Amino acid sequence: MKIFPVVMAGGSGTRFWPLSRKSWPKQFLALAGSRPLLAETVARLAPLARPEDTLVVLGPAHEKAARKLLPELPRRNVIVEPCARNTAPCVGLAALHVRRRDPEGVLLMLPADHHVARPARLRAALASAARLAAAGRIATIGVRPSRPETGYGYLEVGAPLAAAGRRGDGAFEVKRFVEKPDLATAERYLAGGGYLWNSGIFAFRADVILEEIARRMPELAKLLDGIGAALGTRREAAAVARLFPRAPSISIDYGVMERSDRIAVVPADFGWSDVGSFAALPEVRAGDRSGNVTEGEALVLGRNNVVLARGGRTVAVVGADDLVVVDAGDAVLVCPRSKAQDVRQAVEELKRRGREDLI
Amino acid sequence: MKIFPVVMAGGSGTRFWPLSRKSWPKQFLALAGSRPLLAETVARLAPLARPEDTLVVLGPAHEKAARKLLPELPRRNVIVEPCARNTAPCVGLAALHVRRRDPEGVLLMLPADHHVARPARLRAALASAARLAAAGRIATIGVRPSRPETGYGYLEVGAPLAAAGRRGDGAFEVKRFVEKPDLATAERYLAGGGYLWNSGIFAFRADVILEEIARRMPELAKLLDGIGAALGTRREAAAVARLFPRAPSISIDYGVMERSDRIAVVPADFGWSDVGSFAALPEVRAGDRSGNVTEGEALVLGRNNVVLARGGRTVAVVGADDLVVVDAGDAVLVCPRSKAQDVRQAVEELKRRGREDLI
Repeated sequence: MKIFPVVMAGGSGTRFWPLSRKSWPKQFLALAGSRPLLAETVARLAPLARPEDTLVVLGPAHEKAARKLLPELPRRNVIVEPCARNTAPCVGLAALHVRRRDPEGVLLMLPADHHVARPARLRAALASAARLAAAGRIATIGVRPSRPETGYGYLEVGAPLAAAGRRGDGAFEVKRFVEKPDLATAERYLAGGGYLWNSGIFAFRADVILEEIARRMPELAKLLDGIGAALGTRREAAAVARLFPRAPSISIDYGVMERSDRIAVVPADFGWSDVGSFAALPEVRAGDRSGNVTEGEALVLGRNNVVLARGGRTVAVVGADDLVVVDAGDAVLVCPRSKAQDVRQAVEELKRRGREDLI
Repeated sequence: MKIFPVVMAGGSGTRFWPLSRKSWPKQFLALAGSRPLLAETVARLAPLARPEDTLVVLGPAHEKAARKLLPELPRRNVIVEPCARNTAPCVGLAALHVRRRDPEGVLLMLPADHHVARPARLRAALASAARLAAAGRIATIGVRPSRPETGYGYLEVGAPLAAAGRRGDGAFEVKRFVEKPDLATAERYLAGGGYLWNSGIFAFRADVILEEIARRMPELAKLLDGIGAALGTRREAAAVARLFPRAPSISIDYGVMERSDRIAVVPADFGWSDVGSFAALPEVRAGDRSGNVTEGEALVLGRNNVVLARGGRTVAVVGADDLVVVDAGDAVLVCPRSKAQDVRQAVEELKRRGREDLI
């Protein structure tokens, strides 16, 4: 069994403005530790595979930054999507690349912009998932929920896998995938057990996932056939540029996972967060005694604030609780933590005002 | 009757940090209009007296800035207190200066850091007060309350003045001065009528106020005698430096007004605000349709915020109401409007951290 970690770094979200910009999205930000999330993600996979077998998929605007950030990766391991088409086409493209190297190679697909507090536990779960994948399953990692989170998708756990590898691996069938629930439902999931957070981390063999795509997404499969035929030839770049943009913008969850009968889940608990917005930083960073997460010259008189003073200036927060304040140097953001998702509205408004320099 | 406006500009408050600094306090800030409050105050008195008869009293740290801001004032009209001793010693010192020019000269004493929306009405009230003063009264301007404000002192109106000058002048006796009331009391004052806001604006003859000080504050009077004897001589600077710091730090309200039997009040309504903190800016500046008062590159999605982007950067406020956000270039302040008084706590903390460069 040969393992190929594939880090999906195609995101271009705006929820971390003003730190994130079009040319510098979330995965390039050091939100949790001292290194950008993308670098942390690749580093925590290093014990599982050589750099020569580790791939990153991203958009053309971020290729240069990624190469600079990840000098250990061979040039051909940075795969450029000509445009963003959600995760299903991304998975398909990565699977084509891996199939060329080893048709039964196991892909470990991971988002580039999540945080993992206990990487050794993640690697153990990935090893289990890889063994399941080598045996032909499509394995996903399910995170044991610690709170009734409404911002994540869930999956309902089925029966234990009888033949789950020599060591058991503690894997289960998946009854169903569930979209982000409301609070009452999330509380029921948490109290009743039997539900896991969908981490968006998957393991599958290249040939298996391409087979599943052919079965569930024939339109995408046809485009991938065209690209696959050109891979490694002089026609590769032209084929990707011509065919990839025609792919439907669909997630691999929706396109394959929720319909496949080969899914298995490995439950795990590795201090996971998808770092969905500034409001999530207290999940991934230590705060002070008043629950404030600060960086730079911050002066905070209040509780549970997130204050990032990255502009070299003093940022004083007085008598306020549960605020996000971010000084990025050329722009300052202030919003309640409960409204951190709405930061994108500021980006929309800046666009309307023609402030391309700030977005 | 000769009128001498005297603008009291000795304040050194910290409630407008980070815009205000030790070397640049509130009265030097353009908080209401395009000019600093001190310049606005002097300008709105111009129709009442010549620059040659207009005085400013302030501390040594602000003398140079005041001279630059008010080039029309003769050099000797900028009176420097060697140290801050509240308003009673300030009034006494100013009265000595005016008495040298005209013993029966009428001082119009005004704080430098208030806002007046209708200056013509203020001037009319001051003219009435000046006539009362010329007749030997100590006249104060009382502002008709428009809301149950708990941040102002009040005065209770007595009987109409029988001999209130040829034109009547609509003045009244003053029953008593009241300290800042609680909300229930303030609501009673507003509903019942008969109470006015104490604007801190007074008119009196130089000889009359010095006489009152001699009667009510003999300790201060003795020091003023010493300074008065040296005024205009080579000993003046030394006498002021030696004697003024010994004066008790007491307000003219407490020291004289609340005890004198010569007080009269001129009720008036001239769009007055003492601009007590950033929270008061909506009183003195027009807001947008959502009640936001903004300046500079502000992007505000919310209601009733005060956002001053004076640092040349974009300041975005998303999903927040009733916040104060001030970017001063080298420091950023964020606080709820209801906590705007607590800004001084940030200044205290900066002092503790040894950040003299920021305070």
